[in-house]
Amino acid sequence: MDTKKKIAALREEMKKEKIGVYIIPTSDFHNSEYLSPYFMTREYFSGFTGSAGTLVVTESEAALFTDGRYFIQAENQLQGSGIVLMRSGESGVPTVRKYVLDTLPESENIGFDGRVLTAETGRYYKKNTGEKNVGIVDIDLADRIWKDRPALEHTEIYLLDEKYSGKSAAEKLSEVREKMSEKKADVHIITALDEISWLFNIRADDIKCCPMVLSYAAVTESSALLFADTNACGEKVLEYLGKNGITLLPYDEIYSYAEKLSAGSVWIDKKRANFRLAEAVKKCEIVSEPSPVELLKAVKNSVEIKNIRYAHLLDGIAVTKFMYWIKTNVGKIKINEADAADYIDSLRREVGGEHFIAPSFDTISAYNANAAMMHYSADSKNCAVLEPKGILLVDSGGHYFEGTTDITRTFALGEVSDVVRYHFTLTVRAMLNLAAARFMHGCRGENLDILARGIMWENGLDYRCGTGHGVGYLLSVHEGPNSFRHKLSEDRSMSAVLEDGMITTDEPGIYVEGSHGIRIENELLCKNAEKCEYGQIMEFETITYAPIDLDCIDTALFETRDRERLNAYHKMVYEKLSPYFDGEELEFLKNCTRAV
Amino acid sequence: MDTKKKIAALREEMKKEKIGVYIIPTSDFHNSEYLSPYFMTREYFSGFTGSAGTLVVTESEAALFTDGRYFIQAENQLQGSGIVLMRSGESGVPTVRKYVLDTLPESENIGFDGRVLTAETGRYYKKNTGEKNVGIVDIDLADRIWKDRPALEHTEIYLLDEKYSGKSAAEKLSEVREKMSEKKADVHIITALDEISWLFNIRADDIKCCPMVLSYAAVTESSALLFADTNACGEKVLEYLGKNGITLLPYDEIYSYAEKLSAGSVWIDKKRANFRLAEAVKKCEIVSEPSPVELLKAVKNSVEIKNIRYAHLLDGIAVTKFMYWIKTNVGKIKINEADAADYIDSLRREVGGEHFIAPSFDTISAYNANAAMMHYSADSKNCAVLEPKGILLVDSGGHYFEGTTDITRTFALGEVSDVVRYHFTLTVRAMLNLAAARFMHGCRGENLDILARGIMWENGLDYRCGTGHGVGYLLSVHEGPNSFRHKLSEDRSMSAVLEDGMITTDEPGIYVEGSHGIRIENELLCKNAEKCEYGQIMEFETITYAPIDLDCIDTALFETRDRERLNAYHKMVYEKLSPYFDGEELEFLKNCTRAV
Repeated sequence: MDTKKKIAALREEMKKEKIGVYIIPTSDFHNSEYLSPYFMTREYFSGFTGSAGTLVVTESEAALFTDGRYFIQAENQLQGSGIVLMRSGESGVPTVRKYVLDTLPESENIGFDGRVLTAETGRYYKKNTGEKNVGIVDIDLADRIWKDRPALEHTEIYLLDEKYSGKSAAEKLSEVREKMSEKKADVHIITALDEISWLFNIRADDIKCCPMVLSYAAVTESSALLFADTNACGEKVLEYLGKNGITLLPYDEIYSYAEKLSAGSVWIDKKRANFRLAEAVKKCEIVSEPSPVELLKAVKNSVEIKNIRYAHLLDGIAVTKFMYWIKTNVGKIKINEADAADYIDSLRREVGGEHFIAPSFDTISAYNANAAMMHYSADSKNCAVLEPKGILLVDSGGHYFEGTTDITRTFALGEVSDVVRYHFTLTVRAMLNLAAARFMHGCRGENLDILARGIMWENGLDYRCGTGHGVGYLLSVHEGPNSFRHKLSEDRSMSAVLEDGMITTDEPGIYVEGSHGIRIENELLCKNAEKCEYGQIMEFETITYAPIDLDCIDTALFETRDRERLNAYHKMVYEKLSPYFDGEELEFLKNCTRAV
Repeated sequence: MDTKKKIAALREEMKKEKIGVYIIPTSDFHNSEYLSPYFMTREYFSGFTGSAGTLVVTESEAALFTDGRYFIQAENQLQGSGIVLMRSGESGVPTVRKYVLDTLPESENIGFDGRVLTAETGRYYKKNTGEKNVGIVDIDLADRIWKDRPALEHTEIYLLDEKYSGKSAAEKLSEVREKMSEKKADVHIITALDEISWLFNIRADDIKCCPMVLSYAAVTESSALLFADTNACGEKVLEYLGKNGITLLPYDEIYSYAEKLSAGSVWIDKKRANFRLAEAVKKCEIVSEPSPVELLKAVKNSVEIKNIRYAHLLDGIAVTKFMYWIKTNVGKIKINEADAADYIDSLRREVGGEHFIAPSFDTISAYNANAAMMHYSADSKNCAVLEPKGILLVDSGGHYFEGTTDITRTFALGEVSDVVRYHFTLTVRAMLNLAAARFMHGCRGENLDILARGIMWENGLDYRCGTGHGVGYLLSVHEGPNSFRHKLSEDRSMSAVLEDGMITTDEPGIYVEGSHGIRIENELLCKNAEKCEYGQIMEFETITYAPIDLDCIDTALFETRDRERLNAYHKMVYEKLSPYFDGEELEFLKNCTRAV
């Protein structure tokens, strides 16, 4: 079926249900960042393959809303489909919410699959349909049309041993119950996959690059329920669940469970839980706040921290070997961007051995101008061939049993221009300046962001993204609530107070369209430094160990502090990595980490 | 009458009105920072003279709530009064709100003068008395007891010429009306004295150090009402008001005016307006947001900015003359802290001539350990005599027709210890680092605070206050919504986005109890720098012109940038001030502003 036929079929089904506007967002039942193929409904109906967007279909119109990252791609992919591209954020372009309400015909309903819209958004429509005297139809029309839809995959669940997690599920549950009692919540329903996987020390392979279990959870004072594929749990997992007071129930039964809750107080985060689930608990009093699991899992325990340092050691070895390989071979053998990505992935697998599980995201390997596109993905059949000049940006990471890594290095492949050298040096200075921060406990990422970004601002430059994000432990490589960013507004929640044990990336960059992109990314572990009479001083430990390419740096642009910081960092990298290197590679490492 | 008798008399009156708990906060009818003597009711009943605190009286108890700044003073002043000191902020000490509700007897009322409590606080009590089945009695019992209460003074109102204000009242009103129409507000009631005085270009001398008019205002699409003392307006003022479409009504009539509003939407800020007034407009729809005047007056226009630079020139001359005098005369003639304060005040008057109106606050002159108390006030009869060693902190400012100033300098009077020199140097570095900021439009004080405070944090130090506040134009020396501070919490509103034309102080410091206090304060004018593809870059212009005492600086603690910044600042100070100096004073200025 082509896109036009699919939309026509959808309109047929809409008519049967008296649905005037049907909404297809980009989401799964858990508001996840990455989706398994079953959930790629928006892509199925529109043909647009980007990672963000909402398709809205009425009897006469079809509109795809997406953001600036995808305008060009969407325009190409929507050609001939009859679907109009709505450039979100551009002036005059309505929000999805406004468009839906404006185009909704009198006395027809708004339709959507209530499991893929957040409760907050669904409630918004429900509240605002009153005037037109219509209602909400919570239905998945895709199922009727999408005949070869991939199955909703549940892979085998495995345990994350306590030597990796540092805490039993029972201990974690008791921490959650403490927070529940503070909020006087009788039941806490958890829908975010990373939160559930963390809480119960379970992992799976249900979503690419995200070793989490497709599941829901409900916790009460005396019980803990895991709603997941009951066939996906082996003997060992069942035993662990049992021992920790966790009952396994079928994945879909969360809805009937929720329906049955008829009194007391239910903690469910309406910003993240889906509409159907939140509607099901309507009879109860609702505490709509972020799950306490979010903060608990963001603060890594001492076992996790020890493990994570080890994961970064493996990671640093792989990245340094890659750096040696690319610098030695570029121009001698044919290497394109995808080859480079494959090579670093294979090094990670090889160095990591049994510790390594999978890449933590699709490696970004972008040469020169391609790196100016922050979400560039090299197509192996049609991508840039690397030459012994210019720069290659490689953003990659791994899931190890010992934790998840995320690192970006930008490498000179030969001669680089003065402006590249200037931008590279600024980026290094910015990254190091944030890493050197000392601050009072109570600060958030919004207080610290200027330490990195301010160096760009001083030079009339900036980057159009945050400076860093939290990193999960064998979960999602992006996690909240900690981050480094600067925008503060009343409409948006702040990032978390930075706590001892939180890990956040530090990844400033400079992106010049049509020319080049530079990013240097280390991970920072937040730690208590000394206490003084004013409070607890905090500092960062850098836990990423790989050389920063000196071939790209203009030390004339350094202040004394920059030079000291870079040399200290490279000294540590050499000390950490050199025991694992010998011969030419060792010489290479020594040269790459020399004091400047 | 002694305090015990006053409290007894108050209890008599409470009984007559069936009031179980009576609340006396520290405020006037306008939630002002500084009070005229009529409003010093809390001081009258408790004997406690501090600038902050709430007295709560029940049939059997009397409790004074105040904060850490005043614990020692309050303890002394409450001795023998029978009033218990409640140390707000200490663990186990309830909030005033909790204490009031907990001590309230069954079926008795909560009483307070509804004009001195904010609407928000009053509504809180009203909402929470339900359980005890009681109500609110809005009554000023002080009037029945305080026989020699000072009159509510209304001094003569004068106009601020448009050559100073830069805009007519009519122009300002049209800006306010534009904002009203955005919020669909039919009436905007303004209660903050600085907002009204700014809006109508009027000033008076009703409150010490605050040349504002005791008044209320109401603005509609077609009218503007000023509720003030009708006898306080001369011919010229009446004419100006008339020409600008402003009707003068008696001060007290605001309440009957508000009562009469029976439909439409009223914009009144419940966080700042008083309870009685907000109750009076209850029949209308309420828009409770900060008045648009707050932001309009914070963004100084080009005429104001030109004037303000001139005011700072006069101010810098006075401060430099003071610096010369104190350094030349200390140890030779007897000078105590109060003498020093008087001398700088007299210099401001002398230098300012007809431009000068009054000090913008009571000058703080604090020697050595006394300066560690941030709110120290020297008692002329009993204060420290200055010796030719150690340091003197002088925080002072003036109201000129050309604007308001606020400057702090800390001077070496002779030998200073190494630790003082270290702390002084850090303070200078912190102040200069914030002043040198370049940042993207959209940043708030919370994003920038670390540029100053971070230098303290690096050294395990801090200061227990914000880094800076907005400064009014011939209004209050402290004004919002811009400031530099770092604490971000969901319960508290953020400081404003920093806009071209805003003026904020930059005043880091170090305060060591029992030893010394250091503060260096310049004012920063926020300005648009260049636009780049990422947005509008912002920067600061320092508009305070007075030497920073080189005798206290250890340049060995400077980084290159610190040295460059200080030298550039002193070069500017010399260029601005030298035309006004000659002889020994000129030599002194030259030496004080030499490059280091």
